[in-house]
Amino acid sequence: MDVYEFAKSLIRDAGDFIETRRLEGFEVMRKTGPHDLVTPVDKETEEFIYKRIKAQFPEHNIVGEETYGKDVKTLKGFTWIVDPIDGTVNFINQNDNFAISVGIYKDEEPYCGFVYDVANKVLYHSKVGEGAYRNSEKIKEVDYQPLDDTIVGVSHKWLLKDDVRQFFIELVDKARSVRNRGSAALDFTSVADGKYGAVVFYELFPWDYAGGRILTNELGLKCVTLTGEDVPELEASSVVCGHEKLVDEILEIFDHESFKEVHDKFFIK
Amino acid sequence: MDVYEFAKSLIRDAGDFIETRRLEGFEVMRKTGPHDLVTPVDKETEEFIYKRIKAQFPEHNIVGEETYGKDVKTLKGFTWIVDPIDGTVNFINQNDNFAISVGIYKDEEPYCGFVYDVANKVLYHSKVGEGAYRNSEKIKEVDYQPLDDTIVGVSHKWLLKDDVRQFFIELVDKARSVRNRGSAALDFTSVADGKYGAVVFYELFPWDYAGGRILTNELGLKCVTLTGEDVPELEASSVVCGHEKLVDEILEIFDHESFKEVHDKFFIK
Repeated sequence: MDVYEFAKSLIRDAGDFIETRRLEGFEVMRKTGPHDLVTPVDKETEEFIYKRIKAQFPEHNIVGEETYGKDVKTLKGFTWIVDPIDGTVNFINQNDNFAISVGIYKDEEPYCGFVYDVANKVLYHSKVGEGAYRNSEKIKEVDYQPLDDTIVGVSHKWLLKDDVRQFFIELVDKARSVRNRGSAALDFTSVADGKYGAVVFYELFPWDYAGGRILTNELGLKCVTLTGEDVPELEASSVVCGHEKLVDEILEIFDHESFKEVHDKFFIK
Repeated sequence: MDVYEFAKSLIRDAGDFIETRRLEGFEVMRKTGPHDLVTPVDKETEEFIYKRIKAQFPEHNIVGEETYGKDVKTLKGFTWIVDPIDGTVNFINQNDNFAISVGIYKDEEPYCGFVYDVANKVLYHSKVGEGAYRNSEKIKEVDYQPLDDTIVGVSHKWLLKDDVRQFFIELVDKARSVRNRGSAALDFTSVADGKYGAVVFYELFPWDYAGGRILTNELGLKCVTLTGEDVPELEASSVVCGHEKLVDEILEIFDHESFKEVHDKFFIK
């Protein structure tokens, strides 16, 4: 069975599973702190996806936010990087603005990427070399807009980090505006839609960006760390994604020794 | 003709006008600076609304964001407070997440309030004492959620004000999360929908909050300044709106002499 077609169908089914499960009610638990929550629906959805993949493709590797694949260190064969619910706080408080994010690698190369806006039943998907789609509609290339004509998608978590806050404030000042929707995966789709020029995150995990990165890459967009390095596939990273010229403008804001020091201490293990 | 029914129909027509006018193309102009933009569509939509009201109710007063009613100082008779496009940056960059906001006062008392999510054709409306509605669906009362279980709607403009930034950061830290959608009027509808517990703004104008304040007041919610005073009808103001208990929790963050000093210098003329 074709992996891309299988994944599209599985992700839509997982969206239906979330909706069914939500109606039954669920608890909310804290992970690392009061801003970092999880529900049994996150874990059960990851399990739903895991089992369906394993039943069809027993040899595929799966890295999930919640449970599976913490031991996966290479991208040999097929590897699925899965966030069952990206934007858990929105899922809990809004029943909107959350997504299933999936990136699939084949022999260390990006193979296909998916972000499913569950509440609105809009699946963003792309297979490398075959274009990017919003449901069945082909997504157009994104034009360059300079930073002061552009909306940038961000997270407020920046503000809680004393050492890097000033750079974030400079970004807020230089961009036409910034928005915080609370789902990094959906923010990538806003870049694909041309509603944001770029997304800028201080800390994302592979399951937050795998699907969105492969999707936006298919549209010719650039995705690097805030120090201009390649974003890793299997590690936490800062991320800036958008038109190459706009990404370069944004990187200039962060091109300071003091930023690089804090950033590298945080990310380089 | 009934003013409430007339207003609902007019606002939907104005939404259609915006869509028609958008397709013809438009320029973008700066108002006070690079973050404060306006388009001819803003002005023409205000004119569209103004003329239709005046044709039906020549004696009504109209206060608009762009052009009309700068001389209106009292709320005697009927007064319409109109923002033709709230969220102009979103209108320009996204063609989504913008609203028409209208609050109507009758003899100095709130009479009815409207926020129209133009791109999604959802009209939030209420007549005082008769309930609040999302299109034809009655909106339920909003439950209390403590601050650390709640999403708060905000604007990033806070960050560009050195004197008050620290209080904003404390809010970001204490809330479950914050979101910035870029339209104050739509943020009030997110409170009505229960998607946000509250909205917190350092500076809004009457046309930004008139419709949303009357709408949320009908749901039993509280709307005051960040120093706990009544929000004026015809002047710029800070605004916090939500369930009374949550608003009190938020006001505690801002209950500092240093905040009050900067705030009052800014707002009290």
